[in-house]
Amino acid sequence: MRLAELSRRSGVSTATIKYYLREGLLAPGHQINTTTAEYDEEHLRRLRLVRAMIQVGRLPVATVREVLGHVDDDSLGRTVRLGAALWALPQVPEPDEDDVHVRTAHQEADELLRTLGWTNAEQLTSISPAYRSLVVALAALRRVGYDWDAELLVSYAQLMHRAAVLDLDHVERRPSEAEKVETAVLGTVLVEPMLRALHRLAQEEESARRYGFE
Amino acid sequence: MRLAELSRRSGVSTATIKYYLREGLLAPGHQINTTTAEYDEEHLRRLRLVRAMIQVGRLPVATVREVLGHVDDDSLGRTVRLGAALWALPQVPEPDEDDVHVRTAHQEADELLRTLGWTNAEQLTSISPAYRSLVVALAALRRVGYDWDAELLVSYAQLMHRAAVLDLDHVERRPSEAEKVETAVLGTVLVEPMLRALHRLAQEEESARRYGFE
Repeated sequence: MRLAELSRRSGVSTATIKYYLREGLLAPGHQINTTTAEYDEEHLRRLRLVRAMIQVGRLPVATVREVLGHVDDDSLGRTVRLGAALWALPQVPEPDEDDVHVRTAHQEADELLRTLGWTNAEQLTSISPAYRSLVVALAALRRVGYDWDAELLVSYAQLMHRAAVLDLDHVERRPSEAEKVETAVLGTVLVEPMLRALHRLAQEEESARRYGFE
Repeated sequence: MRLAELSRRSGVSTATIKYYLREGLLAPGHQINTTTAEYDEEHLRRLRLVRAMIQVGRLPVATVREVLGHVDDDSLGRTVRLGAALWALPQVPEPDEDDVHVRTAHQEADELLRTLGWTNAEQLTSISPAYRSLVVALAALRRVGYDWDAELLVSYAQLMHRAAVLDLDHVERRPSEAEKVETAVLGTVLVEPMLRALHRLAQEEESARRYGFE
C-alpha cells in the first residue's frame, strides 16, 4: 500500500508517519521509484504499536526506540526478549535502601515470593523493575500506616497471577513470533489501564451492593 | 502531641506540616497557649493520607482539598461519600463520542456489565469516571487493532471484582467510619501501584515457567 493508504488504515496522519520514519521508529517502505514507497501489513502493525506507546502510553521517542530494539532482537529467547522490551518501559525510581520501610518491604516481598512458590521471580529480584516497583509500593503503604497482613498480599498476588495467565494465553494465540512480542508490549501499555478501570468499576459495584446508593 | 512529635511520628517535616496547615489540608491543632498547639491521632492519620496523595499519588493540592472535602462530608452515605472522594481523583479525559472506536467501546462496555450482572454499575454509566476510563481503554485497544473477545474481558472483570471484594473487606475491618473512608482513598492511591507491580511480576514468573530463561 502507499503512504496515503497506510495513513488511512492506521488513522495516523502522513506527517506523523514521516516523522516516525525519520526517527527510525518505522522501517522505510520498499522504494518502487524515486518518489514512491510501498508499505505492507508489517508496517501497519508496527505503526499501531508505535502510536499506542506514544499517544496512549505517552512514552518518549527515545524509550519507544529502545523498546522496539528489544522487540526486534531475535537473537534473544522469548522471556528475555519480552523482559528486555517491558523493562525498557518507564519504571519507578530506585527505592532508598537506607529507609527502614524499604527494608521491611524487601522482606515482605521476598516472603511473598517464597509463599507463592514463584521461584523464577525469586531469581530476578536483583534486576526486575517489577520487583522494585513492588518494594516501592509496599514501602509507601507501610509509611502511611496502611495496615494489612501477608495473607491479603498473597490473595492479591494470586489474582494478578491469574490475570497474567490470561495475558500470556492471549499472546500465545498470535500467529507469528513478532506479533507475540508486539502483543505483549501492547498488552502492558494498554491492558493495564483497562484493568485499573475494571477494578474501580468493580469497587463501585461492590460498594453499592453492600451499602446501597443512599 | 506537639508539632515536633507529629513530625517525627509521621516522617513529615515541620515546614511541610505548616504548609499543609496553611493550605487547609490539615485541621489546626488545639491551641494550648499563643505559641503552642496540641495534635492528636486524628491529625497523624490525616497527615499520612495527605502525604500519600501528594507525595506518592502526586496529586495537586487543589485535588487533595476536594477529595478531603468529600471524605469529611458525613451528610453522605458511604457509597456516595466514597464515590465522591474517589471521583475527585484525576481521571482520564472525556472520550470523543464521534469516534467510531469509542462508540464500539461503549457497546462492549455495556454488554460486559449486562453479562456480569453488575446492575449497580449499569446505573452509573452516565456519571462514573471508572466507566469512562474503561471506554477510553477499550477504544485505545481497538484503535491499535489489539484483538480480543468478550469472554476474555469478562474473565478480567471477574478477577478485578475479586480484588474489589478483598479491598472492601479490608476497609470494613477499620474501626471508625472516618478510617474506613480514609482507608478506601489510600487504597485507591496506593494499592493500584502494588497490583500493577504484582501483575508485571506474575507475567515474568509465568513467562519463565512457560519459556524458561534462555
